[in-house]
Amino acid sequence: MSSQDDLFYPVIELPEPTRRARYDRLVGLDAMKARLRKEAILLADPHRLRAWARDHHPGAALAAFDLFADRAPLFVFAGDVGSGKSALAESFGCDLADHLNLPVYLYRLKLATRGSGLVGEMTALIGNAFAHLHEQGRRSRDARRVNCVLILVVDEAGALVQSREAQQMHHEDRVGVDAFLAGVDSFAGANLPVLIVLCTNRVGALDPALMRRTAATFTFTRPGDQQRRAVLAHALQGITSRPDTLDKLVQLTSPNGDRPGYTFSDLTQRLIPAAIVQAFPDEPFATNNYSPLPTELSPIPAFTEGSR
Amino acid sequence: MSSQDDLFYPVIELPEPTRRARYDRLVGLDAMKARLRKEAILLADPHRLRAWARDHHPGAALAAFDLFADRAPLFVFAGDVGSGKSALAESFGCDLADHLNLPVYLYRLKLATRGSGLVGEMTALIGNAFAHLHEQGRRSRDARRVNCVLILVVDEAGALVQSREAQQMHHEDRVGVDAFLAGVDSFAGANLPVLIVLCTNRVGALDPALMRRTAATFTFTRPGDQQRRAVLAHALQGITSRPDTLDKLVQLTSPNGDRPGYTFSDLTQRLIPAAIVQAFPDEPFATNNYSPLPTELSPIPAFTEGSR
Amino acid sequence: MSSQDDLFYPVIELPEPTRRARYDRLVGLDAMKARLRKEAILLADPHRLRAWARDHHPGAALAAFDLFADRAPLFVFAGDVGSGKSALAESFGCDLADHLNLPVYLYRLKLATRGSGLVGEMTALIGNAFAHLHEQGRRSRDARRVNCVLILVVDEAGALVQSREAQQMHHEDRVGVDAFLAGVDSFAGANLPVLIVLCTNRVGALDPALMRRTAATFTFTRPGDQQRRAVLAHALQGITSRPDTLDKLVQLTSPNGDRPGYTFSDLTQRLIPAAIVQAFPDEPFATNNYSPLPTELSPIPAFTEGSR
Amino acid sequence: MSSQDDLFYPVIELPEPTRRARYDRLVGLDAMKARLRKEAILLADPHRLRAWARDHHPGAALAAFDLFADRAPLFVFAGDVGSGKSALAESFGCDLADHLNLPVYLYRLKLATRGSGLVGEMTALIGNAFAHLHEQGRRSRDARRVNCVLILVVDEAGALVQSREAQQMHHEDRVGVDAFLAGVDSFAGANLPVLIVLCTNRVGALDPALMRRTAATFTFTRPGDQQRRAVLAHALQGITSRPDTLDKLVQLTSPNGDRPGYTFSDLTQRLIPAAIVQAFPDEPFATNNYSPLPTELSPIPAFTEGSR
Amino acid sequence: MSSQDDLFYPVIELPEPTRRARYDRLVGLDAMKARLRKEAILLADPHRLRAWARDHHPGAALAAFDLFADRAPLFVFAGDVGSGKSALAESFGCDLADHLNLPVYLYRLKLATRGSGLVGEMTALIGNAFAHLHEQGRRSRDARRVNCVLILVVDEAGALVQSREAQQMHHEDRVGVDAFLAGVDSFAGANLPVLIVLCTNRVGALDPALMRRTAATFTFTRPGDQQRRAVLAHALQGITSRPDTLDKLVQLTSPNGDRPGYTFSDLTQRLIPAAIVQAFPDEPFATNNYSPLPTELSPIPAFTEGSR
Amino acid sequence: MSSQDDLFYPVIELPEPTRRARYDRLVGLDAMKARLRKEAILLADPHRLRAWARDHHPGAALAAFDLFADRAPLFVFAGDVGSGKSALAESFGCDLADHLNLPVYLYRLKLATRGSGLVGEMTALIGNAFAHLHEQGRRSRDARRVNCVLILVVDEAGALVQSREAQQMHHEDRVGVDAFLAGVDSFAGANLPVLIVLCTNRVGALDPALMRRTAATFTFTRPGDQQRRAVLAHALQGITSRPDTLDKLVQLTSPNGDRPGYTFSDLTQRLIPAAIVQAFPDEPFATNNYSPLPTELSPIPAFTEGSR
Repeated sequence: MSSQDDLFYPVIELPEPTRRARYDRLVGLDAMKARLRKEAILLADPHRLRAWARDHHPGAALAAFDLFADRAPLFVFAGDVGSGKSALAESFGCDLADHLNLPVYLYRLKLATRGSGLVGEMTALIGNAFAHLHEQGRRSRDARRVNCVLILVVDEAGALVQSREAQQMHHEDRVGVDAFLAGVDSFAGANLPVLIVLCTNRVGALDPALMRRTAATFTFTRPGDQQRRAVLAHALQGITSRPDTLDKLVQLTSPNGDRPGYTFSDLTQRLIPAAIVQAFPDEPFATNNYSPLPTELSPIPAFTEGSR
Repeated sequence: MSSQDDLFYPVIELPEPTRRARYDRLVGLDAMKARLRKEAILLADPHRLRAWARDHHPGAALAAFDLFADRAPLFVFAGDVGSGKSALAESFGCDLADHLNLPVYLYRLKLATRGSGLVGEMTALIGNAFAHLHEQGRRSRDARRVNCVLILVVDEAGALVQSREAQQMHHEDRVGVDAFLAGVDSFAGANLPVLIVLCTNRVGALDPALMRRTAATFTFTRPGDQQRRAVLAHALQGITSRPDTLDKLVQLTSPNGDRPGYTFSDLTQRLIPAAIVQAFPDEPFATNNYSPLPTELSPIPAFTEGSR
Repeated sequence: MSSQDDLFYPVIELPEPTRRARYDRLVGLDAMKARLRKEAILLADPHRLRAWARDHHPGAALAAFDLFADRAPLFVFAGDVGSGKSALAESFGCDLADHLNLPVYLYRLKLATRGSGLVGEMTALIGNAFAHLHEQGRRSRDARRVNCVLILVVDEAGALVQSREAQQMHHEDRVGVDAFLAGVDSFAGANLPVLIVLCTNRVGALDPALMRRTAATFTFTRPGDQQRRAVLAHALQGITSRPDTLDKLVQLTSPNGDRPGYTFSDLTQRLIPAAIVQAFPDEPFATNNYSPLPTELSPIPAFTEGSR
Repeated sequence: MSSQDDLFYPVIELPEPTRRARYDRLVGLDAMKARLRKEAILLADPHRLRAWARDHHPGAALAAFDLFADRAPLFVFAGDVGSGKSALAESFGCDLADHLNLPVYLYRLKLATRGSGLVGEMTALIGNAFAHLHEQGRRSRDARRVNCVLILVVDEAGALVQSREAQQMHHEDRVGVDAFLAGVDSFAGANLPVLIVLCTNRVGALDPALMRRTAATFTFTRPGDQQRRAVLAHALQGITSRPDTLDKLVQLTSPNGDRPGYTFSDLTQRLIPAAIVQAFPDEPFATNNYSPLPTELSPIPAFTEGSR
Repeated sequence: MSSQDDLFYPVIELPEPTRRARYDRLVGLDAMKARLRKEAILLADPHRLRAWARDHHPGAALAAFDLFADRAPLFVFAGDVGSGKSALAESFGCDLADHLNLPVYLYRLKLATRGSGLVGEMTALIGNAFAHLHEQGRRSRDARRVNCVLILVVDEAGALVQSREAQQMHHEDRVGVDAFLAGVDSFAGANLPVLIVLCTNRVGALDPALMRRTAATFTFTRPGDQQRRAVLAHALQGITSRPDTLDKLVQLTSPNGDRPGYTFSDLTQRLIPAAIVQAFPDEPFATNNYSPLPTELSPIPAFTEGSR
Repeated sequence: MSSQDDLFYPVIELPEPTRRARYDRLVGLDAMKARLRKEAILLADPHRLRAWARDHHPGAALAAFDLFADRAPLFVFAGDVGSGKSALAESFGCDLADHLNLPVYLYRLKLATRGSGLVGEMTALIGNAFAHLHEQGRRSRDARRVNCVLILVVDEAGALVQSREAQQMHHEDRVGVDAFLAGVDSFAGANLPVLIVLCTNRVGALDPALMRRTAATFTFTRPGDQQRRAVLAHALQGITSRPDTLDKLVQLTSPNGDRPGYTFSDLTQRLIPAAIVQAFPDEPFATNNYSPLPTELSPIPAFTEGSR
């Protein structure tokens, strides 16, 4: 079996300041954060469900709990690049750790796990990654209680779990889907405190067999006016806080005809920095130069599946 | 020859409580279960056929029995993801074991058996898997009687047995079909208590030469109103049993325009859990929030072959 | 050179009861059987030709005999799956053995001979298979007489000898055709008692250079009314022999609009067994349930080449 | 360097009775045989050209002879399967040997020379084959005279020298063309008694760079009435010689609407043998059964390039 | 890990006379040079940003600076061949070195880093290249200050970072994109004085996930009239300086109907040299021969993506 | 590093009689020969350029000379097969040697340099070939003067440098282009007496990045009337010199409707030899048989890119 270092980027124990800050910066996702927290708690610690049933449905049979236990602990985060899905996937463990009062360990699948293109190799590596998580998961609880939670994040999951319907899919990729399905299935009913989060910008291309196993799908969209305003106000704190400046920036970054609205990363990684660069080193920040916004600062286009 | 562990997931002796429960949960498939039981009994224990002939057609020649013995013990389970085919494939052995009063061993073909993409390797691995079953099958009976039954389940059989008509099929995959055909043929007339069940959601894509060898094809469809009601009532036992609540849920999950009806797994793995998550931790279960059902709880779409 | 076990399935000495029974069960192919017997005798034992000429054309030159000796001993059996071509290929040696009063050895090319996809490997394996047959063939006769006959059956020959015209053909497959051609040529004029039978359901796709070398092509079609009646009567012997029952079954299994007629294997491996399963264990056989025939017992569709 | 046995089928010294007989059987190709003889003589023994010039153009400069010496000794034999091109390629050396009064050695490129699909390997093997011929060629003459002639026949040359224009051509195949071109060029101006004959049924697909190097192209067509009559009369010598029988056979085998005429091999390897099989063992030969000719004896279809 | 020599062309310390001269020759790109200088300074030495904020926005929060630190130090240079992007990428470090008063080391990714086509190999090599830069980057600063700057130039980046949207993209190439994304991400927030410049003539084909990480995109177009005049005047210094000659050349090299204008390299590497060759060795330079410009001196056509 | 023998065909020192004769036989290419001589001299010996400037533009700055030195010494010879481009590429060194009074060494890239299809291998081999030339080039001059010139000819360059625009191009081929570009760049500004000549019949398919680096492109067309007459007269010297015979041959070989005109090699390698073969051994040369020219002597068709 490959070693942990071959399979995952360095494991990170949450909470941790940087990621907690990122979690906090993801404004306007409160409903999603709440649902995610509940789903994660129920999957990571099934005792909570029984407590709820005891309180609200005293005579409930075991059937419902069995269904929960039979689900694979798989979340799909779907949305455009820049919509915050990767940031949330790598940071919500901070919030979960707070609520469960347990450490949460973040595993991120390494690119190399996708193997060298040999069919059997990809199967073996993905199998090893899941086997490793299984083993760690078993050590994460004893008969009485859970003592920590593991989160596996698979970012840029594109080809790995693309639908096998796609005719042009290579055999090796189809096998990747199969191996991933087998790994996910191995956690269904295993009652281990392990969550698997799969990020993709191509939810339409995900294999139906995978979608069927998904405990919950979270769809990320580009931020609306209020979300953009919150992001901008946070970023420009102390530089500018005049409402009309923010109004203007919010309006300039909204969808416009064929152009989609600005994503989180369009704002924080490109627009604000570019405005500061423009002013640097001799001028103060100003939005005068940004009406209309220059073409080179257009929002990133929506990812569209190749049509066939 | 590869070892048993390389070829199959751990072998499971049936009956076994979890799978028996799953078998029982598959409501509304009684006709299919009955036919499956008969086919399986006749293939696994040919003496029963002679007893029948002796009772009903005393003068019958051997020709008919020879035809039975010449068939390959191959069942195809075809249907959408979530329609229960895999669950039935892995659990009907419990019922068979009861009726034959014999242990039934469940073999599940490992993904790795599909090899690393080298043509010869896939051929060899599939060959080894069938050879292993052959050997075990010979040990499963003596001159007088059968002492156990073996079931091989090949799940997600897609690419493995796809029609060789498909022009875009790679050479390696065609060879996989050939190897599988050879394996199936090796059981035709071998009079061994071995059953092979092949699950696929692409029955239209199965190779004609394989279809010709099939003893019986079972087609799985999405559950109808009564089946959905039975599933829901079972799952919500003790949580809610009000007929109007069930009525409402049955109606909400029925086919609607272009949207297909809910599958078994849509109900048990997604809808019920989501309703409970919604209520958790402070509210009791209620269906008020589910009219209409939210988009994210849409039934899984029907698997359609890529058109060409 | 690879060993015999790597190249062929276990060699079977004919006549042998099971295969003789299969040969006899192939009703309605009498003309084909007669022609096949003559072609095989002339190829396997050229002395017979001279005897014929001596009797009927006393002054005949050697030219005609040279032409015979120059032909490759290659038969192509073409037809739909289920039409009996494989069964005849593997059993006509019983009849030949009787007529020649010599043992006939049946060689069946192993799948592995198709190699692991490496071009050179496929070439080498096919080359080895033919070389092995050559050597065995030389031992099968001495200066005076033939002492046994060898038959090589290549089943599911599809990709191996597909026409090189096909644009989408891979280089490796084209080389397979070339190697096969070379092997066939090596028997032309070699005067060895070896027959090669190639079974395919894609005769239209066979390479013209191969067709040119073919001593005779036998085309298998689905059985007509009389053939189906004979098959059914044989199979149901002692179970039912009422003419109206057979009439009804013959009519139900005939071509009907777009649906082709039933093949031999549709009848013997699917229709009859299904009817018996239906009756088993408590009822006698009856055809009442079969009007019309259920969809799941439709005849296997005709194999059609992928259109381009 | 690979050994001679890896590169070529066993080398055959011509003249040799079987091939001389085949050469003689190729009736109706006299003009082609004559031109081939002259081209071969001039390439194999350039002194003859100077003798001619001395006789007919006493003052001729060296320019013309240089042009001859600069040509590659490459002949392309193009035509349908069955049109006699391979038979002539492997047998005209008998005639050449007679006219030059020298032994002629026939080399036939082995299939394996086409390598295992690795680009470099094919290049190396073809390179080795030509290098081997070069070495043998140098030994075939001394300063004063040629003491033998070598003929290399490349049969079924299809993919090896297909035009690089074809877009769907694989890189490996293009390299095969390149290696062949380099080999051919190495003989241009080398003044060695080596002739290269390339047989193909796809002359339209030959690479222009190869066509440019061709000393002469010989196009083979299906035999006309007189040629067919001659072939039939020869084959049926002593069996039947009645003009009306021959007339009838000639007419039955002529082109007819879309159906092309019969090739040499259609006549000698299929039609005549089938008629004899039909009569065997109890009847004399007769053509009554052949009007019209049965479908299974249709002439082989013309090889057509896949249209794009 | 591969050695530095396997990964990069020899590292060059800037400023260096040849590249400084090239930087100076790139006339008409002043705005681009200025922006590039500012972006590079801010990424390479974040203290400058704080100094600016201290001067112009005394109360600014850390949020803005965090955003800067979170960006990947990635520049995309996009434009036609010949538009100067590679020249600027390899020479702007001279200018940066002057302004920062620090040495700048130029790393150029070797072709071999793209590996031998094995998926895992390309991943590993790209990973090694970034890891090497990381290590060098850490040595390039201490707690207090930066002591040098590293620039990585990836020229002809085409296939390496092509959009994964493209359906016909091979798996290996998609993995190349993934590995590159991971490498770029590893510098985001790492606060190392490393800049990555990616040159491509196919900006439309760049992966959206890459575009999102880009700190700035610089688009290079063909030079306008004034730029061409400046280039020509510089090149012909001392040969001709007559305004009408320059006017004529400027006009001859401007866009004309479907023909695009001349690129920098069209002028300096083809037009001027050709004019001199024309005159050499016996005539002085003259433009008479260039009206109109000969076809063989047409400007290089614009690179267009293959349409689909 | 591979040895010289692995990379190049045997190196030939020019001038050499055979190639000088070929150079002389290329009639009608005088303008091209003159321009080629000048370009080659200027690239091989830059001192000549300064001498020219000193004579004609005494005050010329260094800028122009820098431009010359910055160019890659790359010539593209483009044209139909048979148009003389390869012959000129391999022979113009004779003329150059005369004019420079220096030996010229002719390197011809071996086919094997194109590697075995592994991406990294092709990169490495091409890299080695250029590195070898570099080393030899450095030895070819000392501080004061050049002592010999090296010419690298890459014939049949097709796939090696095909445009990366082509969608169907394999990754390995794109890498070949990249490696070639890097090799060519390594000579730009290196001031070594090395010339690179690339012959292709697909100039439209050359990569734009390669075209940009090209110092000069020479386009070869089929010979016109005067050129054909000169070639014919030379070849038939002493055989026939009657003007009307030549007139007739010139007219017969001119373009005619869709048929292009005859190429140099059509005339010298096919037409004249065929006429002589026709007469041999008993008749004198005559053109009577050539009106019109037989189809088998049609000129080679123009190479056309596959349309898409």
